[in-house]
This record gives sequence, C-alpha cells and structure tokens, in this order.
Amino acid sequence: MTDKDKPRFAIIGAGLGGALMANYLGKNGYHVDVYEMRPDPRKGEIVAGRSINLALSVRGMHGLSQVGLLDEVMKEAVAMPGRMMHAVSGELTYQPYGQKGQANYSVSRGGLNVILINAAEKLENVRVHFNHKCVDLDLDAPEAVFEERQSGETRRTQADIIIGADGTFSAVRRRMMRVDRFSHSMDYLDHGYKELCIPAADGGGFRIEKNALHIWPRRSFMMIALPNFDGSFTVTCFWPHDGPHGFSNLKTEQDVLAYFQKHFPDSISLMPTLARDFFENPTSSLATVRCRPWSYQGKVTLLGDAAHAVVPFYGQGMNASFEDCTELHECLQEFCPDWVKALDVYYDRRKENADAIADLALQNFIEMRDKVGDPAFLRKKKREKRLHRLFPNWFIPPYEMVSFTRIPYAETVRRASAQENALRNITAGIIAGTLLLLVILTWVLA
Amino acid sequence: MTDKDKPRFAIIGAGLGGALMANYLGKNGYHVDVYEMRPDPRKGEIVAGRSINLALSVRGMHGLSQVGLLDEVMKEAVAMPGRMMHAVSGELTYQPYGQKGQANYSVSRGGLNVILINAAEKLENVRVHFNHKCVDLDLDAPEAVFEERQSGETRRTQADIIIGADGTFSAVRRRMMRVDRFSHSMDYLDHGYKELCIPAADGGGFRIEKNALHIWPRRSFMMIALPNFDGSFTVTCFWPHDGPHGFSNLKTEQDVLAYFQKHFPDSISLMPTLARDFFENPTSSLATVRCRPWSYQGKVTLLGDAAHAVVPFYGQGMNASFEDCTELHECLQEFCPDWVKALDVYYDRRKENADAIADLALQNFIEMRDKVGDPAFLRKKKREKRLHRLFPNWFIPPYEMVSFTRIPYAETVRRASAQENALRNITAGIIAGTLLLLVILTWVLA
Repeated sequence: MTDKDKPRFAIIGAGLGGALMANYLGKNGYHVDVYEMRPDPRKGEIVAGRSINLALSVRGMHGLSQVGLLDEVMKEAVAMPGRMMHAVSGELTYQPYGQKGQANYSVSRGGLNVILINAAEKLENVRVHFNHKCVDLDLDAPEAVFEERQSGETRRTQADIIIGADGTFSAVRRRMMRVDRFSHSMDYLDHGYKELCIPAADGGGFRIEKNALHIWPRRSFMMIALPNFDGSFTVTCFWPHDGPHGFSNLKTEQDVLAYFQKHFPDSISLMPTLARDFFENPTSSLATVRCRPWSYQGKVTLLGDAAHAVVPFYGQGMNASFEDCTELHECLQEFCPDWVKALDVYYDRRKENADAIADLALQNFIEMRDKVGDPAFLRKKKREKRLHRLFPNWFIPPYEMVSFTRIPYAETVRRASAQENALRNITAGIIAGTLLLLVILTWVLA
Repeated sequence: MTDKDKPRFAIIGAGLGGALMANYLGKNGYHVDVYEMRPDPRKGEIVAGRSINLALSVRGMHGLSQVGLLDEVMKEAVAMPGRMMHAVSGELTYQPYGQKGQANYSVSRGGLNVILINAAEKLENVRVHFNHKCVDLDLDAPEAVFEERQSGETRRTQADIIIGADGTFSAVRRRMMRVDRFSHSMDYLDHGYKELCIPAADGGGFRIEKNALHIWPRRSFMMIALPNFDGSFTVTCFWPHDGPHGFSNLKTEQDVLAYFQKHFPDSISLMPTLARDFFENPTSSLATVRCRPWSYQGKVTLLGDAAHAVVPFYGQGMNASFEDCTELHECLQEFCPDWVKALDVYYDRRKENADAIADLALQNFIEMRDKVGDPAFLRKKKREKRLHRLFPNWFIPPYEMVSFTRIPYAETVRRASAQENALRNITAGIIAGTLLLLVILTWVLA
C-alpha cells in the first residue's frame, strides 16, 4: 500500500491518548489531523481541573517505547517503588509494590503531553489544531464539525477514520449514543477529589520521602501524595462529597484546619497554603464510563477515557489508554486494508480488558483507603511476595501483574483467581496430609 | 394552601405515564400543562413503533382507580388468567398465572392513552399541547423550550416543577445527563422485537384461545401473542438481531416462511399477511435505562420509562410507571409545600423498586423463552400454587407478588428469597426428622 492509499485519520483530542496515537500513526506514514478543544499547552498555563501528575507503569512505558519517546519521558520521572503509609499518629510504614527494581513512575501530565505533541508535530504527515471544539459528527461520512474557539467559525473535516480520544465527556461518544444499540453507562462515585500541594523544601529538596507514593488511609476516605521532579508533591484528597467526612461540611478555613488536625495532622506543616488552596482548587467528581461497541462501521472508534474512563485508584488510566493505542495500531497493521475488521477486532480485544481495569480500579479504592492500614493485609502482601520469589513463573501477585507486566488486564484477574484457588487447595492438602500423618503416627506408637 | 399558591406543573410527554400524572395533579387542583411531541392521537393514525397492546395488572389498575378511570378502561380489556404454551409440534399447554379470579388484562395502548388524555382535558386546570417537541431545558429556572412542530416556532415555558415523562429516549433525562454526578446507563439486549398480527376470525371471533397470553418458547428466542378486544392478536417476535436465529438472516419472504415453518409452524395459517408484515414492520431494539438521582432540586423529576425503561418480559413497564404516578402524587401531598423533599423522597422510595423490576424483567425473559417449555418448571409452578393455597399469608409465588399485589417490587424480591430459604430449611428439617425416626425405629425394633 502506498502512502497515497492509506486512510486519512482525524483524531479528536490531543490529550495523552490522542497525542500518542498521532505518533503511532504518523510514524507509519498515515496522514493525521489532531483536533484539540483546549489552547496549545505550550503557549501558556496548563488548564486546571485535571490531575497534575500521574503514575506511569510498564504498559504505558511500552507504548512510549514503541514510538521512541520513553527515554525522554523518563528523564523527569520520579520512581515510586512502594507506598508510604501515614498513620494518624504520624507513624510511617513502607511497603514495596513489587520486586527490587520495579516501580511506578510519577510523571507530569502537562510535561508528558508536551513531549507527545512536540514529537507528533515533528512528523511531516501529522498536524495538530488547537482551539477546535468538536460540536457535531456525521458518523457515516465520517465528518467532524468543529467550532474554532477564537474566531467562532465552524469548520468541517472529512477523514477516512475518526478516532475519538476526547476523554471522559467525549463528544464523539455522545454522538455515538444516538446510534441504535449503542449501550453506555456513566457511574459516579460518592467520593470526589481535590488537589493540594506540598511545595519543595527551601533548599530545593523533597520534604518527605521522595521515592514513594504517600497514602494517608482513613478507612472510608484517604489522602495521597505523588512526588514531582521539582521537589514538590501533588496531594489529592479522596473524600465523600457529603456526609460526616465530606467536602461539603468544610465551609471555613477553621473547618479545614480542624479536619486536617484530626485526620492528617502530620501533613499540616507540609502545606503552608493548605487552607487557601482548599477553597481555591475545585472539588471534582470521579466516574466510570463503559460503552459498547466502541467502533462504528470501520469509520469511527473510541480510545482511552472516551471509551472507558476509570477511577484513578490503580494508577492505570493513562496506561490503559496507551495500551489502546498499541492495540489499535497493531490491528490497523494486521487487517489493513479491511478497516471495518481492524476497528472491530481492536474493540473485541480491548473491551474485556477495559472492563477488568475499571473493576480493579474500583476495588483498589477500598484497598488503598482501608486495607493498607491493616497489619493483616500487609502480612498477606509479604506472603505474596515470598511466593513469587519461590515460584516466579507460577505465582505473580495481582498488583504486580497489573503494574509490572503486560499480561492483559482480564487475564490478570483470571490468573489471580486461579492462583488463589490453587493456594487454597495446596493448603487444604497440607492440612489433610498432616492430619493423616498424625493418625498414622498415633496408631503406630499406640 | 389555596389553588393560587399551588405549584404549576409542566409534564413533558402525554404518553401513558404523563397522561395519568396529569389526571392525578389536575384532580388535586394543580395547574398542569402537558407537552407532547407527537400529534394528537385522536386526530389520525396511532404512531407506529410502539407496542399495540400491553398487560395491565394490579399495580396499574390501582393507579387508574385512584383517578376514577379503571371501569372505563376495563370495558375493552381482555382477561389473560394464564399462559398458553405452543410447542413446535403444535401441542398446547396451559398454565394459570395465579389463583382463580386473578388475571393480567390485555389493553390497547392507543385506546388507554386516549382515555387518559380525554379525562385530563376535561379537568379545567389541565391543558394538553400536541406537536411540542422539547428541545432544551433550563433545570434551574426551571424552563422548557419546545419546537412547535407544525409552525417550526420555538416556545418557552416556565413552571414550578417540570416532570419528564418522555419515555426511553427522554429529552429531560438527556439534559440531566449534563449535571455533575448524574449517573446513568442504557443497556441494549442482543434481542430485538418485531410485531405481527393474527386477524380476527371471519365471523369476528378469536382464532386461538381468547383468554390467554400465548407463548411459543424456543429457548434462545420466542414469539408471543396478546389478544385484542376486536378478536385479533398482536404477535411479537423476540429474536436475536444477529446470529443463527437472528432477524438479520431473513432477507426474502421464502426465508421468513421457512423460519416460521421450522420454529412456529402452527402460527403460519393464523397470519395470512405474515411475510408482507414481516418486511413492512420495523425491527426495534430493547433497552434497560437506569439513572440516579431522578430529581433536581425540587424543580425537575423523571417518571416512567424516562427514569427506568425496562424490557417488556414481565409486562410491568406501564404498571411501574403508574406506580410512579401514585407515589409522586402521595409525596406531593405528604410533604407539601417542601417540594425539594417531596421529589427527593419520591425518588428514594421508587429507585430500589425500579431497579428490582428492571432485573426481574431481564430474568423473566429467560423464564418465558426457555423455562416455560420445561415440565420440571411447570411442576415447580404448581408446587408454588399449592403452597400458597395451604399458607396464603406466608407463601406467595413471586410472579403473583409482582402481578397481583402492590407489595413493592424490591420487597417481592426479598420475600421470594426468604420464602425459598425457609422452604429449604423446612425440607432439610423434615429429612433430618425422618432419618432420626428411622434410626429410633430400627433401634426399638431391633
């Protein structure tokens, strides 16, 4: 296939997933136009309302490495090989995530996005258009209609394939919701989140342990902090919107300080602008999005949060998006020029994995806010690690499968359950064997 | 409260739920404007695409009786005290739904709708506006924007409370979907439906048993027929859209006749225009809608399919809508003039019941298409009826609780499960007692 015959792509959204996809396609000689609603992030303030940093793990790193961008990204990444739990008393407990050398990496969302956009724009067949808000879509053409935000003008663009990488509130998905038999759900948590900040120390260092994801687990709610390359930490409160520990109860700076004094006393001295930040920064919602099918007649497909927004508690949202890009790219290569099949198989292969990570992320909220403070849970984690060292191929702790391997998410769930069953059976066998031995011994010695 | 102080209502949708609600409100002195997208059903053809008849049971009958319309509706209702199963061989098996005197009633959707609209319009404080399509909503005002379909003009209407009774694809719900933390889902079945017709006999009578809901259960798919007052039956095929028994495989009249010959041979002679009807009538989709919360700040609320569309397999869609009307009316009376509380409590009381009937309807599809053809299932049903006759207050078969009582749907599920557990425990007790008796007898007689 010559480049002239290759389909032209329009990607809606130049966030992390859309920008990585543009790199994949551009490097393979496809013509790509990327349309982003927001202004160019390189020309001003990064738009607020999204997380400032996020966790990059093996799946995401693989995606970046495929387009040759991993090294550049890792230059400013901060390794988080484990969790540091903060008790109300201030006592610290450290728990490694995996084996020696394994870590999640805290990276800046804005910085990573700029790296991806710069790289995409360097490719001669990729163009990125900012300030273009997608306001309508003709799925059959397919054609996208944009409002150019500065001039207010309307622009229409035809493409052979349109990729909706426009996030949780995707305009592309909203248009697909009008198609018969497009199932979809958006499910909000009762918890929301608010970001705060621990600035770098005066000398420029980190005020708390640099190489860890910090957690203040308080059973029904929690606070976390991820390190930034500049020595600061981005703190996120995950609390209920309403009720006894809810955001809505805190109306004055005194309320806020009293709340932190009660639940997170060791954090107060770390955040000099706590009370002000609390009221200046928004309280945002957390939702899980599911839909099916992601693809429309080989013409339109969804990617990343637009197809499967997940809650952030497994740190896998971006990693799952990047896996979508890898898979979509592979399907386009594998089934070229049957684009209907390429998009359908991409959806088929990714759907159960997207559903699995959505469930895992919901479950991990319970683990992070509640169980990580529990000694029995920490013992279980240690036992898992011991088993993995003894039988590295047979037993892999579920967390490690998700974060440190590329085993498909749905497969990690099946393997985790099979491992658990095998362990239970072995334990039962050992107990039965021991009892039998005792009976025989008693009989022999009697 | 004088009539002047009473809130003004706007109801979006003059279908069954909206029209009944207008009667409830109008009879209690509220000012009500009802806006319906479709033309006046009394001035022409009934719009196609919706079921022609439906099953009315105790919950729906209660709602009608509360506004004094039950007797008029029952004049043209056809009692269906049981199911008539059609085997492929043509063999018929009859199974009563409940006790003597209990029945579901087949009523005409169009006829019932006209009765409700006529009654509403007779109330001096109710006005019904047809050809008004709701195109936007300001939830905070609250204000609804309509496009008047004949003139194309835009009309705006303020009200104190807006009720969205505009069905599965509700414009009101679509507007609420833009509110933060409004969770929603729309989940399509792989099965769709198509309506066909068994005309009345030449003499005007019924060609098959009048007083039954007819089912042709074929495991993974089925066909049903409900009697109409005029001697005809409305037939509905519930088949998969695609796959071996799917609609999409039937492309010619020969295909259709061969399919019916194979699976529903006894029905062919009953439907002289079968093959033509098959291609003239649309194949429609089936979806379950869930959302939360239904109410917005005491200003806007949802009712019926707009809040909780269910699949039709329990025959409870309309009945559940009418229960919504009864509950909403009771809450307005109970909490007047605290409308925020009235709408919130209405939602709280109805939500778990709407979820329960949605689940029951999905489960009942399996029962109707698969189990009703199974002798073991029919024996179980007989056993349930026997138990109910022996212990009428303690044991009520689940189907009867749903169709012939007003026990809240969620409560029927809890009771059914408690009954089952109790039965299992009693059975275990009887077996244990018998064994003990045997042991004692053996010992005494030995």
